[in-house]
Amino acid sequence: MKNFDLIAFDADDTLWHNEILYHSVEDRFKELLSAYADQETIDRQLFEKEMKNLPLYGYGIKSFTLSLIETAIDLSAGKISGREIEKIVGFARGMLANEVQLLEDVREVVVSLSESYPLMVLTKGDLLDQEIKLERSGLEQHFHYFEVVSAKNRKTYQNLLEKYHIDPRRFLMIGNSLKSDVLPVVELGGYGVHIPYHITWAHETVEDHPELGNSRLFELECISLLPELVSRLDSEG
Amino acid sequence: MKNFDLIAFDADDTLWHNEILYHSVEDRFKELLSAYADQETIDRQLFEKEMKNLPLYGYGIKSFTLSLIETAIDLSAGKISGREIEKIVGFARGMLANEVQLLEDVREVVVSLSESYPLMVLTKGDLLDQEIKLERSGLEQHFHYFEVVSAKNRKTYQNLLEKYHIDPRRFLMIGNSLKSDVLPVVELGGYGVHIPYHITWAHETVEDHPELGNSRLFELECISLLPELVSRLDSEG
Repeated sequence: MKNFDLIAFDADDTLWHNEILYHSVEDRFKELLSAYADQETIDRQLFEKEMKNLPLYGYGIKSFTLSLIETAIDLSAGKISGREIEKIVGFARGMLANEVQLLEDVREVVVSLSESYPLMVLTKGDLLDQEIKLERSGLEQHFHYFEVVSAKNRKTYQNLLEKYHIDPRRFLMIGNSLKSDVLPVVELGGYGVHIPYHITWAHETVEDHPELGNSRLFELECISLLPELVSRLDSEG
Repeated sequence: MKNFDLIAFDADDTLWHNEILYHSVEDRFKELLSAYADQETIDRQLFEKEMKNLPLYGYGIKSFTLSLIETAIDLSAGKISGREIEKIVGFARGMLANEVQLLEDVREVVVSLSESYPLMVLTKGDLLDQEIKLERSGLEQHFHYFEVVSAKNRKTYQNLLEKYHIDPRRFLMIGNSLKSDVLPVVELGGYGVHIPYHITWAHETVEDHPELGNSRLFELECISLLPELVSRLDSEG
């Protein structure tokens, strides 16, 4: 018997590479600003700026770009030139135009699970950017649903499951962020599968958490192990 | 009998003022760039930049801000300073932080219709920005549903109505843009109510269109006339 009515995947760094794009732009940004500040200062100020801007700008490449520009102006005390800022905007355009690189085994796993389950892409970030990435990924036809939310917390999961009339106990979410993809789902009574990515944005890290020993929370080393886990839960369910 | 299963409202310039904010920033932008180009050139180049960026950046204040910055760099041949670009970013922050100003009679109409119908806010633009505006509007509790889409065309309306299991013939959409809010809905077999706003973004204007004589398409001078129209359609339905 099927144990789930809906299986949802996070997108960035769960289905396709994302954080490495940001890191690569950050490296170029630090090089561009090297006359004004050392790398550590740039890293710190950029992260602080991003956190400060998050409630106003939200997630995604455009927000990141505005934070880069603001950080550049601050760190250079306004001396940064129009042409240098043009380079920063160019980084953003490069990110937005970038090819989507799927993580290993993602295609096979998604195709296989889509034969038995309705699948959803459930992601934070910028609506248009995520739509374009899903389209470029070539996986679009295997997902029944696509949802972009401005935050992933208990309340947003609850609203979403209500909208789709899904019992949280029959919902499975897979993602690379314990904090955003897994813990709030498990708290609601659902199942969460954590598949770590080799880089985690500092904003997404989590300290100790009571749900970490929960029997509906799983950690897999790679996505290729997911179909087997789902089958096992089906046979136990 | 009720004629509709869902009534959806566009947000910007249908529920609350929006275009005037953009106009006011454009005025300040033209003043800032007055040393580099005349007003007409700035207007034209900015619009061209926005149209060129739309497929990559999408709608909303952050996209607009990036287009402003790029236009400023182009028109000044890179001579624009960091401090001047800081001002442009400041315009954006001002827009994002702005109080929501409801259009006249909107509150009464929304409250009254929400007693008989499930209502939706259905808007383009930036997810977080629209969420914040709905929250600030004080109308949130009267809307059952909130959806942000990256484009409003026949396909996006069709997908949305399928997701909610709504027959297009029992769907009514209200908005200030014939092109985005009204015509695609009427084409699908639904009802569309056009309530013009005194400013329309050039991108949203429409030339002659075969649906303009359709009996499911209505034009109202102001939103206070909407409840009467809905009652009439109910009694005919």
